[in-house]
Amino acid sequence: MCTEPGPSNHQLTRRGALLGGAAALAAAVAAPAPARAAPRHGLRDLTYPLTTTFPGFAPGEEAVRRTVKTIADDGYFMQEWRVIEHIGTHVDAPAHFTAGGRVATELQPAELIVPAVVIDIAARAAREPDTVVTVSDLRTFERRYGRIPDRAAVLMHSGWGSRVGDPDAFRGTDAAGGLHFPGFGADACEWLLSHRRISSLGVDTLSIDPGESETFDTHLLLTGADRYGIENLANLEHLPRSGATIFVGLIPYEGGSGGQARVLATW
Amino acid sequence: MCTEPGPSNHQLTRRGALLGGAAALAAAVAAPAPARAAPRHGLRDLTYPLTTTFPGFAPGEEAVRRTVKTIADDGYFMQEWRVIEHIGTHVDAPAHFTAGGRVATELQPAELIVPAVVIDIAARAAREPDTVVTVSDLRTFERRYGRIPDRAAVLMHSGWGSRVGDPDAFRGTDAAGGLHFPGFGADACEWLLSHRRISSLGVDTLSIDPGESETFDTHLLLTGADRYGIENLANLEHLPRSGATIFVGLIPYEGGSGGQARVLATW
Repeated sequence: MCTEPGPSNHQLTRRGALLGGAAALAAAVAAPAPARAAPRHGLRDLTYPLTTTFPGFAPGEEAVRRTVKTIADDGYFMQEWRVIEHIGTHVDAPAHFTAGGRVATELQPAELIVPAVVIDIAARAAREPDTVVTVSDLRTFERRYGRIPDRAAVLMHSGWGSRVGDPDAFRGTDAAGGLHFPGFGADACEWLLSHRRISSLGVDTLSIDPGESETFDTHLLLTGADRYGIENLANLEHLPRSGATIFVGLIPYEGGSGGQARVLATW
Repeated sequence: MCTEPGPSNHQLTRRGALLGGAAALAAAVAAPAPARAAPRHGLRDLTYPLTTTFPGFAPGEEAVRRTVKTIADDGYFMQEWRVIEHIGTHVDAPAHFTAGGRVATELQPAELIVPAVVIDIAARAAREPDTVVTVSDLRTFERRYGRIPDRAAVLMHSGWGSRVGDPDAFRGTDAAGGLHFPGFGADACEWLLSHRRISSLGVDTLSIDPGESETFDTHLLLTGADRYGIENLANLEHLPRSGATIFVGLIPYEGGSGGQARVLATW
């Protein structure tokens, strides 16, 4: 279930990007797969639990919770949360970086159930924390797995999830307070916007721009093109490189610059 | 797209509860349906925008937001929210009413992508605000649409959504401060737990128990059986009575008694 599809799976992957990925969820969630059946099925949670220690882009942005009702005293249990829209696994709506851009409630359901492709730069990122997804990475991906489908969420897997329990390591904070983690290069973002019909970019780091960016070029390009971002994705190493469908369960915050999202993948 | 399937659709509905519902999303979101094709496809958002005026079960529970960053001053836009876990379209986890019950992070992805059936009591609810879904309603449903599938989310459509803009009307507040809106009767809940393998109950009102309940029997039965509830669902009148698949995008709040959820339906 966790092995990636190779070239031999290409035709299934192409055909399956929407139809197969969606249909596969039934078997994935309803019944064990037949022992010798051909198609691989899967269901993965790409969402981190929203905790009070999940690292914010900046220290101090962490979520805060308090218990407001208890079963012992009130007959039922309930917490209250104070959260910025960009903590935990979350969406950046176009309005996050683009004046007049669409807010969370304006992203349409059809934009939130989309095929996903995974660009794996983990080996390089382990050596170079400032590395980015490049146009060359995208071309290499397409040679092996086929053309990035229309409406795709293009997801960077950098392996950064292994650091999420250590905020300084996840942010890649250096002695001068600078940040170091991988993201999408502006060239790659521009290429996808110009040459492919993507819905979104997603990353397993705190930002679709690399940590060292001071100009947030990828945010500006992506939101300027009315597309959305997904940050702090989990478990991307368990997804097939192509052929999954993701459901982006964005909370439709009024006037939201984005917001928390439950993201599940099926294939 | 909004007409309900009649008995002639029954076979499709049964077969399609998982496989068809999931596969249908591709056509629903990717391309216009062929003009004369047989299967009906649909995609609906069952989620209300999360606003500062969305009615709480009790007045004063409304969400609060503030702007923390603006593009003009900071280069990007961001809001902060203060929310209880039970405002807007949300899930009740077993821990909400059952000591030791599972919290939000413990509901599994396979429980969050499930077939949905809609029990329509809107005509009766228009006359009797305190009406409930009964065992008789469930039997009548099954005679017409077939057996409630395993893992189903059983959703009550009472027509209460037309009142959501008026908190007092949505709560059905009477002169003495009592609440009046429809919910699931405890008998119906018990029947579903004993005789069908449901995942959850959902309602288009503030509570899976009727408003006038003081003992919250349905909450206690459902969470005591380790199942979850979904409250404040929108647009149920646009769903087929059977054959849809819903995605319950619950935010996995740490220790959560439940929480906000983006709920989408496909068929």
